[in-house]
Amino acid sequence: MAEKITKRSQDYSQWYVDIIMQAQLADYAPVKGCMIIRPNGYAVWEHIQQALDSMFKETGHVNAYFPLFIPESFMNKEKEHVEGFSPECAVVTHGGGKKLEENLYIRPTSETIIWSMYQKWIQSYRDLPILINQWANVVRWEMRTRLFLRTTEFLWQEGHTAHATYDEAEAEAVLILNLYKTFAEEYMALPVIHGKKTDSEKFAGALHTYCIEAMMQDKKALQAGTSHNLGQNFAKAFDVTFQDEKTQLQHVWATSWGVSTRLVGALIMAHSDDNGLVLPPKLAPTQVVIIPIFKDDEEKAKTVEAAQKIKSILKPLGVRIHIDDRDQYRPGWKFNEWEVKGVPIRMELGPKDLAAGQVICARRDKTEKSDKVTMKTDEVTTKIPALLDEIQKNLFDRAKKFRDDNTFFVSDYPQLKKLMEEDGGFAKCFWAGSKEDEAKIKEETKATIRCIPMDQTGEKGKCVLTGKETDVQVIFSKSY
Amino acid sequence: MAEKITKRSQDYSQWYVDIIMQAQLADYAPVKGCMIIRPNGYAVWEHIQQALDSMFKETGHVNAYFPLFIPESFMNKEKEHVEGFSPECAVVTHGGGKKLEENLYIRPTSETIIWSMYQKWIQSYRDLPILINQWANVVRWEMRTRLFLRTTEFLWQEGHTAHATYDEAEAEAVLILNLYKTFAEEYMALPVIHGKKTDSEKFAGALHTYCIEAMMQDKKALQAGTSHNLGQNFAKAFDVTFQDEKTQLQHVWATSWGVSTRLVGALIMAHSDDNGLVLPPKLAPTQVVIIPIFKDDEEKAKTVEAAQKIKSILKPLGVRIHIDDRDQYRPGWKFNEWEVKGVPIRMELGPKDLAAGQVICARRDKTEKSDKVTMKTDEVTTKIPALLDEIQKNLFDRAKKFRDDNTFFVSDYPQLKKLMEEDGGFAKCFWAGSKEDEAKIKEETKATIRCIPMDQTGEKGKCVLTGKETDVQVIFSKSY
Repeated sequence: MAEKITKRSQDYSQWYVDIIMQAQLADYAPVKGCMIIRPNGYAVWEHIQQALDSMFKETGHVNAYFPLFIPESFMNKEKEHVEGFSPECAVVTHGGGKKLEENLYIRPTSETIIWSMYQKWIQSYRDLPILINQWANVVRWEMRTRLFLRTTEFLWQEGHTAHATYDEAEAEAVLILNLYKTFAEEYMALPVIHGKKTDSEKFAGALHTYCIEAMMQDKKALQAGTSHNLGQNFAKAFDVTFQDEKTQLQHVWATSWGVSTRLVGALIMAHSDDNGLVLPPKLAPTQVVIIPIFKDDEEKAKTVEAAQKIKSILKPLGVRIHIDDRDQYRPGWKFNEWEVKGVPIRMELGPKDLAAGQVICARRDKTEKSDKVTMKTDEVTTKIPALLDEIQKNLFDRAKKFRDDNTFFVSDYPQLKKLMEEDGGFAKCFWAGSKEDEAKIKEETKATIRCIPMDQTGEKGKCVLTGKETDVQVIFSKSY
Repeated sequence: MAEKITKRSQDYSQWYVDIIMQAQLADYAPVKGCMIIRPNGYAVWEHIQQALDSMFKETGHVNAYFPLFIPESFMNKEKEHVEGFSPECAVVTHGGGKKLEENLYIRPTSETIIWSMYQKWIQSYRDLPILINQWANVVRWEMRTRLFLRTTEFLWQEGHTAHATYDEAEAEAVLILNLYKTFAEEYMALPVIHGKKTDSEKFAGALHTYCIEAMMQDKKALQAGTSHNLGQNFAKAFDVTFQDEKTQLQHVWATSWGVSTRLVGALIMAHSDDNGLVLPPKLAPTQVVIIPIFKDDEEKAKTVEAAQKIKSILKPLGVRIHIDDRDQYRPGWKFNEWEVKGVPIRMELGPKDLAAGQVICARRDKTEKSDKVTMKTDEVTTKIPALLDEIQKNLFDRAKKFRDDNTFFVSDYPQLKKLMEEDGGFAKCFWAGSKEDEAKIKEETKATIRCIPMDQTGEKGKCVLTGKETDVQVIFSKSY
């Protein structure tokens, strides 16, 4: 705990790693590119899982589990898919002491194994739709890794749905896109732009890919979730057909969609400060920590008793609350520890407060002394939940303001280049370029089209590169 | 749904597979020895997870996630462990299109990778205990596999704890053993014998292994969970030491413990009947299904409305309830479907019942017509939860009676042999034999010592094989 956190202004990447290490969110694994998600980090992931899982279930999805291993021959069935994923796969060649007859790929994503089963399960329109989600680990052999954001093995959820028509599949892909946006904004306090990927950036094997994109504090974009309309590509590759109501045989339509432990990285980068982690209350494993302040056993007994009373009132309301009554650390040391760990509210409770029938609350999102809130002990029932809501809202508003302040409309290529070279941020512009144009801009500016936002104004303008008139606006940015 | 389920008396193994297939709990994967856990089966696993996870957390444990991959060199550090697990490992030799410098094993269990991290995290007695659990997939290359009971890949939880003393580690191993017993009996309605494994049957690398053993309906034993006191074996292999309060350097003491998706297999085999799956209410994804019975739209409107009213009353009480108002199937077809799927209570609601202000409930655990329960609609609030409790209790009592009826005291080896050759079941006997004696009995009878029960009478008797006097009693049985 005693080590210092590098300032963001000094070294943003190091700041990110320092926070992860000091808040004990994760650690480097002895296997290249892999990470250990430590209890503090995993608890955040559990809250992400719970919230998303409820949202999936409320919209009719069910969970299942498919194998880790994918036969090599399966990977080869969908051409774009194998080209996209094969180079980054881990391959099992031996099992039970023997060389295998067919190599097994560790799943980088599960479309192929799942569609090989859908082939067996789907015969009639009555079997549709299938709305399955899976929580699992996947492996993609990454050259440059970064804790949470890009690791060789990561945890995620992958939805794989099967539908009778293009329209149904499209509606599902958009439903999930909106669900992801709602989750990011309401739970993660993370404003996102939801939109469509260009063909260069879409998923290997998809008709088209939707995504949510967030701005981190270094003004780079982070793709926080994707939802794909896979068309009939996998149904054709695995020969998955159904008899429609007119007894005609048709290929099934598909979607897939996922978010991963990368979201924990997004949370850290979006909200934290130079003092440590800042967690939005809705996803904070501990929302309130009470620190009884005492000089002797008598004071300890009294303040801890009062703390327990407050806990017994707030816990039934669903507030995740912890009392730190350890003897071996002083209050100042504890304040610092819980600040580094990102707990939204720190409640201080000393003998004087006790006498005055009050508690002092320090907000993690506003750390000036003047931001501290004093409340009567009998008001905690209403004021603590309200304060948690206020912190949640403040984090969102702050992140949104930062993003809006760093989003610029650019009307020509020199402007775009200058922005990417100097300040960075999101560049909004008209776009009518080709795949090759996109590649050229990526090469020259390191920026890519993050998405074609769903919210288009409809107005016309000139393409930032080609000058052709168009009504399509896109977001360019450097990204993770 | 229309296919028949093989009778238990006819072919027990086929009965088991038929139930899994027809209740759509799982399916065979295209990869040898692997399975797909389908939504109906996965939902049961989710309820198992939730109940256990709460019990772990209430006893101070936290979740984390460690990598899937274990470097080959790590596996070799603990001698017994590598001998036990290496032969059944899957090995990754290639990643990202290149041959790896060091082969990676897919974790068959995570002691080695976890203790390599504990080496980094533990310095002082202040860092102890560490009480970490992980929910994960593991791979063991199995020759003969069986859905849920023994698959190449399976899902499980594995606890890995670190302690300052032998006594603390031993207390933890026993705490978890008792927790598993409580879970099996209270949630799974599965009576278990908790005990210690003999040295021949203990975990590779453990000082000793505790286990819970249940009897299936074919009278074979099924090991449903294990808890190991690992002593200092892994701490020594990975050089994990801590400074105690007197600044002396000591090796850390360890435990590990786990249960897996095998529990779903145990549930099926313990309670189901020739009509299909029978689920204990506490783990049933759907506890009550209401089937409105109607001949026309008017009747449908009325019965469905009444069903929705009942649902709106029971759902807030935590009852997991579903209304099956599908038009395309007749009531009889639906009755059969939900029976096969094991839903504890089927509530029938026709126009006549409506007029009489009553519902008729069919219990899944007692399928005679005379077992049906009629209750007033306004009594469901108390009577349905009570009926669910009664079904839960009845399943436990029935399983316990079956086990007790098939447990026999044997005083000499001919008796033991005869029992294993003829009726099967659990053989209770005195034991003072050697490892070699155990091996001989296994060879001759296919039975093994399932455990040395924790509940010993203290009385003395003669070893079933050697005739030596002893006060140790054990359970012999054939097993899965």
